[in-house]
Amino acid sequence: MSVSQSPPLLSGNTRLYAIVGDPIAQVGSPRLFNAAFRARGLDAVLVAMHVAPQDLAGMVANFRVMKNFDGLIVTVPHKIAVAGMIEHLGGNAARTGAVNTIRKLPDGSLLGDNFDGAGFVRGLSSRGIGLAGKNVLVIGAGGAGCAVVNAVADQHAARVGVYDVDAKRQDDLVASVSGHVRGVRIEACKPVAAGFDVIVNCTSVGMKPGDPLPVDIAGIGPQTVVADIILKPVRTPLLEAAALRGCTTHEGHAMLEGQVDTVMDFFFSPTP
Amino acid sequence: MSVSQSPPLLSGNTRLYAIVGDPIAQVGSPRLFNAAFRARGLDAVLVAMHVAPQDLAGMVANFRVMKNFDGLIVTVPHKIAVAGMIEHLGGNAARTGAVNTIRKLPDGSLLGDNFDGAGFVRGLSSRGIGLAGKNVLVIGAGGAGCAVVNAVADQHAARVGVYDVDAKRQDDLVASVSGHVRGVRIEACKPVAAGFDVIVNCTSVGMKPGDPLPVDIAGIGPQTVVADIILKPVRTPLLEAAALRGCTTHEGHAMLEGQVDTVMDFFFSPTP
Repeated sequence: MSVSQSPPLLSGNTRLYAIVGDPIAQVGSPRLFNAAFRARGLDAVLVAMHVAPQDLAGMVANFRVMKNFDGLIVTVPHKIAVAGMIEHLGGNAARTGAVNTIRKLPDGSLLGDNFDGAGFVRGLSSRGIGLAGKNVLVIGAGGAGCAVVNAVADQHAARVGVYDVDAKRQDDLVASVSGHVRGVRIEACKPVAAGFDVIVNCTSVGMKPGDPLPVDIAGIGPQTVVADIILKPVRTPLLEAAALRGCTTHEGHAMLEGQVDTVMDFFFSPTP
Repeated sequence: MSVSQSPPLLSGNTRLYAIVGDPIAQVGSPRLFNAAFRARGLDAVLVAMHVAPQDLAGMVANFRVMKNFDGLIVTVPHKIAVAGMIEHLGGNAARTGAVNTIRKLPDGSLLGDNFDGAGFVRGLSSRGIGLAGKNVLVIGAGGAGCAVVNAVADQHAARVGVYDVDAKRQDDLVASVSGHVRGVRIEACKPVAAGFDVIVNCTSVGMKPGDPLPVDIAGIGPQTVVADIILKPVRTPLLEAAALRGCTTHEGHAMLEGQVDTVMDFFFSPTP
């Protein structure tokens, strides 16, 4: 994307939105949301803000008081920490403990919710891939993994396997989702894909050159769907390896694209 | 300017700049600097940030730590307060006590300087209006007035009159400039234009509907130049009244436009 093609037309009246993360170079939100603002005729801009974990609280405090700063998208590694810095959690944020979107309420307090899970499901379904009755393995029980496990369970998957290098985090997520979803087997698993219909990588393993595969895919065939939520690289080693086996692969940007409309409604609804 | 004409093409790699003020709607910097970034082929964006005085320190602290936030333009009413929040002051900032531009040095410390005065002089001179030997009346001894008085004195004006509703602020500015400029008469004056060649309004009087004129222009004729630094409205009551008398009028945006190149060099020079 060339910076010379098309200039930002911003003014002192432009409302400010941001995505905050660390690292930040990989994010797709500026492109997607600025297009969405334009499509709705809104004088608003979304910029990327690169903020380290120790500086997040100060950044949120600044967001809170800045008069023309209306909304915040939150990405890795801040989704869980930010949940403790705001007054109100929507349904998915309360359930997952992770926030990926924050807006201001009329009284100035902050409301956060999480649309990652819904975005992931919508991204798959827009390609004709349903989850009902499927065996799904989710790698990673952090903020994104938690959102995906909950959303997959809500789609009435038959079984959801969960793996995390941190056994406690893995077991906590299994226990939490098992506690409020009926008719779906939620279980701790090893990072082995054999026997699953859909594999989802929700870790950052694959972002850095030389990363190993986050899951052993030796046992899967072309009927398996392999998804990654990593945005950059678009084709992670996992997706490349799965493609070599003839699998359907599903790239990370679909989760983001699947939630743009939902997040826009959240930002601009008078009473969320 | 329609928001639908041309979309911001921003990404996670875009470097962030901002103008901070209160109010903020009037600022022209987003338009001017985004065009300047584009002209230089830089992947950077300047957005407006509306921050109240009590929140300025937190905002500057956030600017300091945000890894992709590289520069700050400072406008009313923060130019003097911000000078006490940063490590280094350039020549014009040290002399005026007011900062209108801040960048980060390689060690992470902040350097501020003030290009308002130079911008005002350059704006006038680009229209063929020189100040050498002239009698100039400056209304307002705040951050902008201070910058303009210093810059006008540097142009070897014959006499610079200074008025401010706050007599102490007025006298302090007269004493300060008299102390380091030779051959120019700097004196406290009433807000009466008669006898001056150039009148400059450096107050915010004229921004709000119904504001009185900041200076009595009953005694001036068409040979007088009347300038305002207010950006919005573009045609202030002062400029309209002066135009009715046949005076040459000079709008506020010229001061801003006159300093864009200088500020760009300040932002992007490796060793300022």
